[in-house]
Amino acid sequence: MPDKLTIVKIGGNVIDEPEQLKSFLLDFANLPGLKILVHGGGKLATGFSKRLGLEPRLVDGRRITSDADLEVAVMVYAGLINKSIVARLQASGCNALGLSGADGNSIVSQKRPVGEIDFGWVGDVKQVHARNIRLLLEAGFTPVFCALTHDGQGQMLNTNADTIAAELAIGLSGNFETELLYCFEKKGVLRDVEDADSVISTIDSASYARLKTEGVIHQGMLPKMENCFRALQGGVRKVLIGHPGLLANPQDVHTRLRL
Amino acid sequence: MPDKLTIVKIGGNVIDEPEQLKSFLLDFANLPGLKILVHGGGKLATGFSKRLGLEPRLVDGRRITSDADLEVAVMVYAGLINKSIVARLQASGCNALGLSGADGNSIVSQKRPVGEIDFGWVGDVKQVHARNIRLLLEAGFTPVFCALTHDGQGQMLNTNADTIAAELAIGLSGNFETELLYCFEKKGVLRDVEDADSVISTIDSASYARLKTEGVIHQGMLPKMENCFRALQGGVRKVLIGHPGLLANPQDVHTRLRL
Repeated sequence: MPDKLTIVKIGGNVIDEPEQLKSFLLDFANLPGLKILVHGGGKLATGFSKRLGLEPRLVDGRRITSDADLEVAVMVYAGLINKSIVARLQASGCNALGLSGADGNSIVSQKRPVGEIDFGWVGDVKQVHARNIRLLLEAGFTPVFCALTHDGQGQMLNTNADTIAAELAIGLSGNFETELLYCFEKKGVLRDVEDADSVISTIDSASYARLKTEGVIHQGMLPKMENCFRALQGGVRKVLIGHPGLLANPQDVHTRLRL
Repeated sequence: MPDKLTIVKIGGNVIDEPEQLKSFLLDFANLPGLKILVHGGGKLATGFSKRLGLEPRLVDGRRITSDADLEVAVMVYAGLINKSIVARLQASGCNALGLSGADGNSIVSQKRPVGEIDFGWVGDVKQVHARNIRLLLEAGFTPVFCALTHDGQGQMLNTNADTIAAELAIGLSGNFETELLYCFEKKGVLRDVEDADSVISTIDSASYARLKTEGVIHQGMLPKMENCFRALQGGVRKVLIGHPGLLANPQDVHTRLRL
């Protein structure tokens, strides 16, 4: 039987809360077995962009990644946040190793084709080099991925952290029994956004279709849900959405996705 | 016989010159055998500090690393420069993997004790975890180190890149036949700083003592020289100082250090 591999994605809102982040990193360090952490960016990058005098560029409400934005993303995601997380996991006895998709050629993406909008330096994942990541896991390291990839031609690209987590889980499902946990500030997918306790315990393809039609699942959650279902279709054994506390207490309320 | 391992340190002045950096990275990618790159910072960090409105703090002419300076160092060294180098090496077929000393717990340092001066977040190397770096090399990765370490307690520390290169070479000498190359903007150690061709071809402990007494070797070169001799005493087989072009043309003029 293949080894179990847990892939945890931690959202930007948790990164922005020092106490929550601290307790999450401790729980993650204590998680037994093979594991990978994928982290989002949080508000730090926006803060630095402002201090550098950069104005966010939006086209039709969609954020564009300019040259300067990419520089800030690489500095904040791969530098400040990634190394801070790695150093803290190391302090808790977890042999963390920080990576972007360029490191070890682990995640190759392609610049999003220019359609009605040119999104700038945004990359859509093309290939996960599972072998290289497996070598790191087998050598005893815990990979910590930031939300950056490369195109294999020398260009770094901004890539959605939820998508990276899903693609890693799919790419490694040939070697491991993979479990994917999306941790964010809520306890799961809510039936009523105003009610933090209205967590939907299971969502399958059929109920997802209904929830979309009823408008229960909102705009912002849709890409995350698509990543969840793509992961399940790609061979990931278990996909959960929940609060970071779920790591230490798997019995806590959460949303489980099923095909 | 142990495998040969080449450790190349590239100075900040080369990083600041796009054309020189490009040609160096190509040469490094083509270097056969096991290898490690250590890079300095260059002027980028200073530029960002200015844009963020940070004033460099000097005490007795020595630079102090404040909280904000460390943040910029982590962003620029571990983020912007490291990932740019890694992505470009990958584009040249070199399976580069970027690291700080925190990643894989590879280099542990301790905050420099406060004596007459408190240098701030500066770390002196305490231990190189050769085993972890060896695992990466054996898995086929080319480690690319920036000049940052950690204290094992969650704190990142600014550390001299020349020292990191020497400590890595010493630490890995038990496993490999190590060769250490310091590449910078000059062809080697100069007898006359005004004459770029006055390269001293060999310096041993005896001639080094004389050159110091005569004032031929200047202030700025002294720490580099000390690192060179410490490396040789620590079991490093060969230590050279020269121009980046030396990588492709080992017959080029350079300075070789001997005990």
